[in-house]
Amino acid sequence: MNFPEIIALMKSHPIATVVTIGVASEVIWRTYIYLRKNAFTPKRKVHEVLFFNEKGGSCLAEHLKSSNKKPRPTKFPDSECPNEFCTSKHSNRIAYEMDQAQYSIDLAIYTLTSVTLIEAISRSLERGVIVRLISDHEMVDSTGSQIRTMVGSRIPVRCPDTNSMMHHKFCVIDGEARVNEIIELKKRKHVRPYNSILISGSVNWTRQGLGGNWENCIITSDKVLTKSFQAEFRRMWNAFKSTANTVSAQKKN
Amino acid sequence: MNFPEIIALMKSHPIATVVTIGVASEVIWRTYIYLRKNAFTPKRKVHEVLFFNEKGGSCLAEHLKSSNKKPRPTKFPDSECPNEFCTSKHSNRIAYEMDQAQYSIDLAIYTLTSVTLIEAISRSLERGVIVRLISDHEMVDSTGSQIRTMVGSRIPVRCPDTNSMMHHKFCVIDGEARVNEIIELKKRKHVRPYNSILISGSVNWTRQGLGGNWENCIITSDKVLTKSFQAEFRRMWNAFKSTANTVSAQKKN
Repeated sequence: MNFPEIIALMKSHPIATVVTIGVASEVIWRTYIYLRKNAFTPKRKVHEVLFFNEKGGSCLAEHLKSSNKKPRPTKFPDSECPNEFCTSKHSNRIAYEMDQAQYSIDLAIYTLTSVTLIEAISRSLERGVIVRLISDHEMVDSTGSQIRTMVGSRIPVRCPDTNSMMHHKFCVIDGEARVNEIIELKKRKHVRPYNSILISGSVNWTRQGLGGNWENCIITSDKVLTKSFQAEFRRMWNAFKSTANTVSAQKKN
Repeated sequence: MNFPEIIALMKSHPIATVVTIGVASEVIWRTYIYLRKNAFTPKRKVHEVLFFNEKGGSCLAEHLKSSNKKPRPTKFPDSECPNEFCTSKHSNRIAYEMDQAQYSIDLAIYTLTSVTLIEAISRSLERGVIVRLISDHEMVDSTGSQIRTMVGSRIPVRCPDTNSMMHHKFCVIDGEARVNEIIELKKRKHVRPYNSILISGSVNWTRQGLGGNWENCIITSDKVLTKSFQAEFRRMWNAFKSTANTVSAQKKN
């Protein structure tokens, strides 16, 4: 069948032609969307542990001395430090993951004072990432805590209102269920490529935790882990929805 | 070639016969050992997260009421509880992993008071498992701490001698590098089947941690994670080898 014959066939069956073109274009469009999401932009695989220990600060003087001389590394600050336990490299490694956030950061943290990590949260906010925070109601007003500053930056913060501790130290970046929720809420049709990442361990996001103690921090794109922690964050967020659990920017007297 | 001919050939080449039989038996033996280690006893795959939250104690009364009536579950106590956050099930889940230990338990824990988990450590000791413990020197004498009791049970305990916190809450069971070390030390030829397991999270092994707080605990046989945590335990153990880091059964005045 040559081209004039096809045209003639289309003219003799106008309804069938419209339906066929409609169905075919929908199939092609959906295939393109599927491939863009799954094949064209493969998920970044991350699976590592950061250890904080007595060796973390041995290169600190070197970093301070050379910070204005050397060209900035391509990946993140101090990423090329040969010290495998470098405190500065580790903090910047966590910040780097937050800098990749496309849609959401869900942070459940007992104490938050680290300037490096707070700056990364601020940069994410500026990019339009939706940040939510769950913390411990006693630690909100502990020395150096930046939780109320976060509330001032339009981040909603919730805490369980009991004497038990909200002792988690985890962060889910672009968790799949949360991204889908945001896409649904914003009625977006196109999903930008994103990677679901979990950051979790013994380490609080404080100066002592990240730069003095013996601590660990897993950074992973593992599906079981990102999914489980995202689900527990969602469960807690809903469980702490009453006003008694909401933290305000100013301390009530 | 029939049987009498083979015998005649062997008689005419006695040295070649001895060498051939020797080599063949060695090959068969090594193949058997390899298969027993890798194929006959496949490694158990574990990869899950326990979450501790406000729902953990909702079934406690039920467990206490029925503990003497029901037949014991097959896997571990309270394993059949339908509450996915059951505090009692979670503690027993961790204890169950220690009960599977064949060679080693390396525990780095900030605080240790949980009776369920201390009993699991004791059972492991009785089975001949080698237990090592790293803790925090200030928390050794905190209320309810069982660290010195552990020393009394012949478990060596080391702590970093500084003001920074040994804040880890992880346990490596039968880590591959540690098992190989023990096999080497004991000059054993036969390795029993074992599974390398990591238990790690925000949760301290205390009554409040395991039964009141909001906490997480990853249990996994993931190779990257078990290997990394085993290596950091080994590094710390060697770093804390001076007598100043060793904890005695009695507090020095």
